[in-house]
Amino acid sequence: MEQAFVKNQTATFITAANLLEHWQGHRGLTRRVIEVFPEKDFFEYSIAGMRPFASMVQELLAIAAPGLRQIVGGDTEQLNEHLDHQNSKAHLLALWDQATAEINQLWAQIPEEKFEETILAFGQYEGTVWSTIFYFIDNEIHHRAQGFVYLRSLGIEPPYFWQR
Amino acid sequence: MEQAFVKNQTATFITAANLLEHWQGHRGLTRRVIEVFPEKDFFEYSIAGMRPFASMVQELLAIAAPGLRQIVGGDTEQLNEHLDHQNSKAHLLALWDQATAEINQLWAQIPEEKFEETILAFGQYEGTVWSTIFYFIDNEIHHRAQGFVYLRSLGIEPPYFWQR
Repeated sequence: MEQAFVKNQTATFITAANLLEHWQGHRGLTRRVIEVFPEKDFFEYSIAGMRPFASMVQELLAIAAPGLRQIVGGDTEQLNEHLDHQNSKAHLLALWDQATAEINQLWAQIPEEKFEETILAFGQYEGTVWSTIFYFIDNEIHHRAQGFVYLRSLGIEPPYFWQR
Repeated sequence: MEQAFVKNQTATFITAANLLEHWQGHRGLTRRVIEVFPEKDFFEYSIAGMRPFASMVQELLAIAAPGLRQIVGGDTEQLNEHLDHQNSKAHLLALWDQATAEINQLWAQIPEEKFEETILAFGQYEGTVWSTIFYFIDNEIHHRAQGFVYLRSLGIEPPYFWQR
């Protein structure tokens, strides 16, 4: 038993390609959530003073590609959540697609040994590269789920959670 | 570039121990979300006809330890979301803690090669063991975030998302 547990400690089973696919699968779902929002509600609707979903999406865009750029390039990126959304869902969707392509390009430039290195994301959050990327994904799931509640309370059926 | 990408495809960087810690970190946060709910609201409060947070927690309990039992033992578990919660937050927290210990015990019995095997979780959801566990975690983040919105709309500050 002890032996088996020690073996477990070093088991590895997810590849960089798996993790990219997992993330992009989540990003595809988030994109569908953006799409299903009525234009006005996307920028204005709120529950209990929380941010509109558009602001959460701005945060996700500020994290994903800029965060990866730092991982690949090493230069500290600023966390800029105030990109100009032009009050247009189509504009944010275009930025989303641009980030999707950029993430794929950047990912191919991460050497495998990099995933275990420690970084200070956005100059303030310390962690390994892989745990930092997990945090990006978890944060996206978290805010998207808040968007699900917004949609439900607007009487709109969200996309299926399990659909990627 | 092509060569570097191919190398990436096989990079492994997260161990079974890492994944357990990641999951239990999330479970600790979910526990704090349960704790901060007023007893009555935990079982009754809802937005837009969605389930009360207690029902979501029942689902999470129905998935975590039973799902792992199947992974370890191979027998298909039934998805039973209707465990008796006795209308008591303390009772659900006790079940939560019991599941925490059981997850740790079961985890130590997963041989490392198992993570890449394909299973049919609860007799209906096909995937690798690792992707199935990812799904358990993602589903927990998703529902917990809905609990965050419930708390906010009750005027209650949720725990910090980044706190594990």
